[in-house]
Amino acid sequence: MNALKKSVLQAKKTASVLALLSAEQKNAALRAMAASLDAASSKVLTANRLDVDAARKKGLAAPLLARLALDAAKLKNIAASVDAVAKLEDPVGRVLWERQRPNGLCIRKVSVSLGVILIIYESRPNVTADCMALCLKSGNAVILKGGSEALRTNQAMFEALVKGAVRSGIPKAAFQLVGSSGRAAVKELLSMEDVIDLVIPRGGEGLIREVAKISKIPVIKHYKGVCHVYVDKEADLAKAERIVVNAKTQNPAVCNALECLLVDESVAKKFLPSLGLALAKKKVEIRADEKARPLLSGAKKASEKDWGAEFLDLILAVRVVKGLDGAIAHIEKYGSRHSDAIVTENKKNAELFTNTVDSSAVFVNASTRFNDGGEFGMGAEMGISTDKLHARGPMGLEELTSYKYVVLGDGQIRA
Amino acid sequence: MNALKKSVLQAKKTASVLALLSAEQKNAALRAMAASLDAASSKVLTANRLDVDAARKKGLAAPLLARLALDAAKLKNIAASVDAVAKLEDPVGRVLWERQRPNGLCIRKVSVSLGVILIIYESRPNVTADCMALCLKSGNAVILKGGSEALRTNQAMFEALVKGAVRSGIPKAAFQLVGSSGRAAVKELLSMEDVIDLVIPRGGEGLIREVAKISKIPVIKHYKGVCHVYVDKEADLAKAERIVVNAKTQNPAVCNALECLLVDESVAKKFLPSLGLALAKKKVEIRADEKARPLLSGAKKASEKDWGAEFLDLILAVRVVKGLDGAIAHIEKYGSRHSDAIVTENKKNAELFTNTVDSSAVFVNASTRFNDGGEFGMGAEMGISTDKLHARGPMGLEELTSYKYVVLGDGQIRA
Repeated sequence: MNALKKSVLQAKKTASVLALLSAEQKNAALRAMAASLDAASSKVLTANRLDVDAARKKGLAAPLLARLALDAAKLKNIAASVDAVAKLEDPVGRVLWERQRPNGLCIRKVSVSLGVILIIYESRPNVTADCMALCLKSGNAVILKGGSEALRTNQAMFEALVKGAVRSGIPKAAFQLVGSSGRAAVKELLSMEDVIDLVIPRGGEGLIREVAKISKIPVIKHYKGVCHVYVDKEADLAKAERIVVNAKTQNPAVCNALECLLVDESVAKKFLPSLGLALAKKKVEIRADEKARPLLSGAKKASEKDWGAEFLDLILAVRVVKGLDGAIAHIEKYGSRHSDAIVTENKKNAELFTNTVDSSAVFVNASTRFNDGGEFGMGAEMGISTDKLHARGPMGLEELTSYKYVVLGDGQIRA
Repeated sequence: MNALKKSVLQAKKTASVLALLSAEQKNAALRAMAASLDAASSKVLTANRLDVDAARKKGLAAPLLARLALDAAKLKNIAASVDAVAKLEDPVGRVLWERQRPNGLCIRKVSVSLGVILIIYESRPNVTADCMALCLKSGNAVILKGGSEALRTNQAMFEALVKGAVRSGIPKAAFQLVGSSGRAAVKELLSMEDVIDLVIPRGGEGLIREVAKISKIPVIKHYKGVCHVYVDKEADLAKAERIVVNAKTQNPAVCNALECLLVDESVAKKFLPSLGLALAKKKVEIRADEKARPLLSGAKKASEKDWGAEFLDLILAVRVVKGLDGAIAHIEKYGSRHSDAIVTENKKNAELFTNTVDSSAVFVNASTRFNDGGEFGMGAEMGISTDKLHARGPMGLEELTSYKYVVLGDGQIRA
């Protein structure tokens, strides 16, 4: 047996121990992990500098370098996030419902840990700490397969976090960092369906499609976030402008940022010129269809490939549509089932939109940027799912659990 | 495009219509379907006789023939089950939680239909009606791929049920019966991951493993039910005998029937001789380990392959174990994570068992035969899952839904 398989089997062995930890034990360990990471700050930052230097030499693109680079303040935030997970409610052992049956049986549906969770991610080091914290709190063992560019950083963070956990009595094997890089290790992990219960891939669409294609283990994922805002003929146009500017520019590099604006033809003339000026101030490039372009000074002509595109940048596709039906049809054809919004004061239109648009989160008069575990009041999140099975939308602690039925009787037999 | 693909795409097109049907529309259709099936009784029974005759000529085994064969009473029950689904609560549109956020956003987690569900099953014709009823009630389109032995029966039932549904305004394409037999059709269906949302295979372990292996679509399943009863040293032995006899003999052909009895060494001498007589009366063949055999008159010697075996027949494996730990270790090694029970009057032992045994349902002082949607008060069921993602244990109407977040704002933007 190779080292990789051995480490996964060791994690599996700890799963039954982790599943039965009390909230107090887990919270004490999380606090110790946060403190230990804080104490290892200079070690982690040194490792991170080596990673960043190597990545720069390899010519990694600037946005990726920015994601990789840590400083003391960022690291402090990461440790604080681990500490914050200690304050969240224990997701394990919740009684989801309880029923007394006519024959006297008491049926309880109780939340339980999943077992072993594999996270495959690219070069954001905060994912290492977040996933370790969330998996421990949900009583799961975790296998971390991070990007090779961040390996030194991840290793330094991982060691500090494990040290804190072990000091609090958590089995060391509950956390496994896969050092070996490359596709062979990933492929081997994804074939261990008898040992690993769930895979969560995070990163670019290419990585996620590759994982979904070869995995024998259930995968929860989103490929991309092509988010739409539809401005209805009965929209409050001031709200609409505020929401569009926020959804596009507040953080354009993330999956819940706006990529395509749809405007009802009856309000396009009134709405778009002012919006164009506001977006120009934020340096947003506009790619508009034939009807919208004359109303947006400086707009480029949109091509077919701009519909459904995930720009992750200060670029916005704009299209004039025929009412709500036109908007819904566009989203159905080009959307990614992630986050879509309507701006309207008409309740019926709002309801038709939220009922019909088949996305993980649908918004009425609010920015798509709110599709986020923290903003939904769920605490930290493992990512956002556009799948429909098990977990959809932000994946928090509850989504890292399953359930079992516990049936208490007094000798009942079936007639 | 071939006919199979065309029919699945037609089903997909209806999904958005089905998802928005009101409870009243669905319930009226279910009642009409039941009435239409009742009215077609002689047609269905004629078709069934042809299927049964052909299967007998082909040499189908007696238990399979029994499953395939219908009579007027059985068919009446099937129609009554369809009617009963009309009385269950609508699983779509439930508000699972609602939160008002400090910024004024109202976040609602709302249950929604999954979309298109594929059922692959063998020769039990009642599955056709049950699945059509449950899928309609949960707002899903359904693709039915039944066993070729039951094709004429399924077709006659299907036609009658669809006629009733269409009369109530349900789109005909919401139900698709795959006529083409053979693995090629199944393989093609299982590759349509962009159109079909969920596959539920029902039948023998071989069929289910094959489906799980080749499917690109998420599968919910159980391979087999190797259910255990552990008789603790603090068991009420009268209760234990009643539970063991019931779990083994009340319906030995089903997945929640008992297959292996584990007895604590300290009560084996007191418990087994009387149990042996009770089981002999029910003509149960006993395969016992070395310690149990002398205590059970007429018992055969168990071999390694009897542990973990799914007999689905009047055969019981019996093993003497060292206390609770021995029982848990045996179940961990040989169990199928389906249904396992402890008989004990000791609350701590009961709790340790229910916390540690990783099965879809764990029982204290009750027969494993209760792992069933109806017995749990969930109404009809689509099958039982031993998976941990999305649905575990009996799959009822709620398990045929997903959810979305509906966020209502008044112009909120993210800071």
